[in-house]
Amino acid sequence: MRTPTNPDPPGAPPGHAIDSLINAIDRVGSPACVGIDPVYENLPPALTASHATPTAALFEFTHSVLAAAAEAVAAVKFQSACFERYGHEGIAALEQAVAEAVRLGLFVILDAKRGDIGSTSDHYAAAVRRMGAHAVTVNGYLGPSGVRPFVGTGLGVFVLVRTSNPDSDELQSARVADGRTVAQVVAGQVAHLGRETIGSRGLAGVGAVVGATKSAEGSSLRSIMPDQMFLVPGYGAQGGTADDVRALTRKNARSIGQAGVVVNASRSVIYAGSGETNWRVRIHEAALAFARDVARIVAC
Amino acid sequence: MRTPTNPDPPGAPPGHAIDSLINAIDRVGSPACVGIDPVYENLPPALTASHATPTAALFEFTHSVLAAAAEAVAAVKFQSACFERYGHEGIAALEQAVAEAVRLGLFVILDAKRGDIGSTSDHYAAAVRRMGAHAVTVNGYLGPSGVRPFVGTGLGVFVLVRTSNPDSDELQSARVADGRTVAQVVAGQVAHLGRETIGSRGLAGVGAVVGATKSAEGSSLRSIMPDQMFLVPGYGAQGGTADDVRALTRKNARSIGQAGVVVNASRSVIYAGSGETNWRVRIHEAALAFARDVARIVAC
Repeated sequence: MRTPTNPDPPGAPPGHAIDSLINAIDRVGSPACVGIDPVYENLPPALTASHATPTAALFEFTHSVLAAAAEAVAAVKFQSACFERYGHEGIAALEQAVAEAVRLGLFVILDAKRGDIGSTSDHYAAAVRRMGAHAVTVNGYLGPSGVRPFVGTGLGVFVLVRTSNPDSDELQSARVADGRTVAQVVAGQVAHLGRETIGSRGLAGVGAVVGATKSAEGSSLRSIMPDQMFLVPGYGAQGGTADDVRALTRKNARSIGQAGVVVNASRSVIYAGSGETNWRVRIHEAALAFARDVARIVAC
Repeated sequence: MRTPTNPDPPGAPPGHAIDSLINAIDRVGSPACVGIDPVYENLPPALTASHATPTAALFEFTHSVLAAAAEAVAAVKFQSACFERYGHEGIAALEQAVAEAVRLGLFVILDAKRGDIGSTSDHYAAAVRRMGAHAVTVNGYLGPSGVRPFVGTGLGVFVLVRTSNPDSDELQSARVADGRTVAQVVAGQVAHLGRETIGSRGLAGVGAVVGATKSAEGSSLRSIMPDQMFLVPGYGAQGGTADDVRALTRKNARSIGQAGVVVNASRSVIYAGSGETNWRVRIHEAALAFARDVARIVAC
């Protein structure tokens, strides 16, 4: 006799994740996303001094950031690597933080850059759903069949198209025989994958990661992916400007959410008050300022 | 005052990981690697019937596979996704399994296909080292700076160059302006990254994943990456043949390990006796047969 299977409790809420993200952006009035990439060495000394282990300090810090973010932004993006480095205890802390973020009404993106052949991507998608995140970042190097299992679960998916790091050019800007760049080839796959996942707000369930530092290519990527939500890292600390973000938006959008960008900032927000005892207040202020800043850009 | 940092106990053993792998292959006399991708639904009913939770069944199954593998092969490859889908409990099970594999003298590859911008890859590399694996698979879509942090830790690194799934062609076979395929561009980056990591056995610390099903391109990838160890999935169940594997070897190698391939099989070994009560014996037999089979191919 087989024992009952179904080992995965349904985590991700039903419905169309990108619809939910657009609704959340419109409610808050800003497409800002706070990136939670906590690194022990950079945490406020006022905090780390009172904790015996890095994981305990990370846990308190993350929950403080979530409380500040929930009053300022629509979405948070957890950097999985920052938790994975502490093994299963780090993952347990991440699971609790994701649950808390969902409870606070935040849209939750797990930045895990997963991706494998199809049957293995099934397991990664199950892992994300179990955790309760609404969306995940996916690396599409293996091809569309490695991305599709994430899409099929109702998760929002952000496929890496054009990343913000300088040497991403070596591969992503290489031109293929028909004149397109590698990033544009992947963008075409993303647009194709998204075609049957258009939600009630007009955008696809499959979006793209497009760095704010690569806006010279931004408008071409936007024309290849007109119905995609772009997750935009690299604004601010990494050098991306307001004009860079503006180049990535959908024109004539009917709402700020439908402009199709969610702009992430991490270090400039979460370490805003690292040297101070009132670091929680500083994070809150930085999150509010970031949300206003980005709202202005996209409203233009 | 900052509390002491160093949250990562040194996991990976010192030295050159690919040297260790070559030594292990030469000792066993076969470049076979058993892939541990356990899926609850496929486990022997004789096993699952006696366990209350999927994680408990997975745990016993994995340790049984390790015991069988240790008597037949040099290396095992853990599929991280299969454990991640059970959250922090799955990761705890994976941590214990990796520790057991190391204790049994197996070379341990964590198939996690990680990769991000440099500072984030640092955290992923720390996660792999903490777990104690000797090597990890890495997705290089973000560029060399996302791979380098793994290399710097002394971990063996297998960068995805040419994967075994059918639709990987869409991106990996696309030709860039100078006539190379995308896979060949990545192969060039791997060769370059590996140049300063040549070990005492003549191979680089940075290797590549090259599927056995893509051998038409295999000899060109071998000529671009003469000093790389290839991790070869896709043999057997996925359609790769002995000739396909042979096309990937380094010619005139002085030992079987220096032939530069480590050939993975998963389902054909670990589910060899799924319907039977003596499934442990069947796995052992299948691992031995696989090891002999692959030894013959590479010895030719």
